[in-house]
Amino acid sequence: MIIGNLFANVPRHLSEEQIVQLLSAPNLRIERIVSTGHATAPGTWYDQDRSEWVLVLAGSAGLVFEGETEPILLVPGSYVHIAAHTRHRVAWTDESAPTIWLAIHYQ
Amino acid sequence: MIIGNLFANVPRHLSEEQIVQLLSAPNLRIERIVSTGHATAPGTWYDQDRSEWVLVLAGSAGLVFEGETEPILLVPGSYVHIAAHTRHRVAWTDESAPTIWLAIHYQ
Repeated sequence: MIIGNLFANVPRHLSEEQIVQLLSAPNLRIERIVSTGHATAPGTWYDQDRSEWVLVLAGSAGLVFEGETEPILLVPGSYVHIAAHTRHRVAWTDESAPTIWLAIHYQ
Repeated sequence: MIIGNLFANVPRHLSEEQIVQLLSAPNLRIERIVSTGHATAPGTWYDQDRSEWVLVLAGSAGLVFEGETEPILLVPGSYVHIAAHTRHRVAWTDESAPTIWLAIHYQ
C-alpha cells in the first residue's frame, strides 16, 4: 500500500526542481514537483508527448502557453489541463516559499 | 483549455457527497469529491474495477481497508493508493468543515 503526505519533507532551497514519482502505471505517472523560484529557461518550451493535468498545492506560479502574452496565475488549488504537444513554460514560481505541484501525466 | 480551482464553490452542507468530474479520458477519470461528515454506510465496502489514487486537500477522514481494525487518518496532503478490488470504506469525514478529495481513477 502506498501512503504518504505531499506536504512532508518539502525542501526549502533547491538548485534544481525536485521531482518525486508517486505512482507509475502503463498509462499514468503521478509526480510531486517542488520549485523554489525556478522557471523554465527563457525561450524554452515544454512540448510533451503525453497530456498532463497539473495542480498547485502550495506557493504560486505563472504558466504561459505559446501564443499568449500573459502568464496564467496559479495559486493553491489551481489546476490546468495541458494537452499533449501544447507548448508551455513556467514563467516564474514563488521565491518566498516552495511551490508544490501535483503532476498527472497520462495517455 | 480546462482551468479551475479545487477550493472554489465548495458547499458547506450536503445531503449526499458531491462528485464533480474534472477530467475524463479513456484510461483516466479525475474527480473532486466534497464530503461534509459523510461516511460509507455501515457494513458496506467499495470494491472498484479500477485502481484509485486519492488525495485529501482539506478536512480530514478515516479510511479503513477490509481486514484492518483501525482507520487510516487522512489529513490535508495525505494520499493513498487503492488497488482495484481492494475493499475499503470511509469510516468518517470531518463534521466541522468540508473534506475535499481529489480522486484519480485509472486503468
